[in-house]
Amino acid sequence: MPIHKFAITDASMERSPGQDGDIFTGNLLDQRHGGPVTIGFGRYGPNQILEEIMAVHDTMVILEGKITVSDERESVTAGPGEIIAMQKGDKVTIRSHENDVVTAYVTYPHWQQPDD
Amino acid sequence: MPIHKFAITDASMERSPGQDGDIFTGNLLDQRHGGPVTIGFGRYGPNQILEEIMAVHDTMVILEGKITVSDERESVTAGPGEIIAMQKGDKVTIRSHENDVVTAYVTYPHWQQPDD
Repeated sequence: MPIHKFAITDASMERSPGQDGDIFTGNLLDQRHGGPVTIGFGRYGPNQILEEIMAVHDTMVILEGKITVSDERESVTAGPGEIIAMQKGDKVTIRSHENDVVTAYVTYPHWQQPDD
Repeated sequence: MPIHKFAITDASMERSPGQDGDIFTGNLLDQRHGGPVTIGFGRYGPNQILEEIMAVHDTMVILEGKITVSDERESVTAGPGEIIAMQKGDKVTIRSHENDVVTAYVTYPHWQQPDD
């Protein structure tokens, strides 16, 4: 497989599954390419809230803005250059703050199936 | 497993294996924690060159500076906010340019063994 370089401008941003807010994701390497991980960019508008039970392990690198991830026990907030790691099975609430948020993400395994 | 937040200041940076240059890595989540991926930060001084055959799939998110990754067929250069994905088995040359480079990385599987 070739070496890949990705910029957010390469991504086709789509509303992330299961919500109708201002939250978009764009996969750039995923189940279509045969590797073990899904790689993409995410974008959250201001003051968005997403609750989900993690179907996969998800590492987010925050590129712009500030994001808070909480579960019933704790809450962490990260900004540009910081990482948030969520584990498969975690029940989380993800919140953006007053500004747009841009993230890069790597999930294991893929969160979409080959026939999606 | 808890939600993790990592900043580069959390990392114990060590010279990356197999080289004596100005290239350091700091794992923050790895084989010690039981998940499927290794997460950490990397730092390259100016004008460093690292040749390696990838033992794992490695996704780098560039946070500062500019880095070039080449194999025998192609060469890609990425800067802040961009991603380079290398696949297990790729024989690559990684070069920094005139400035320091900071990356966040996610590898699958772990690149260190539990007994390292």
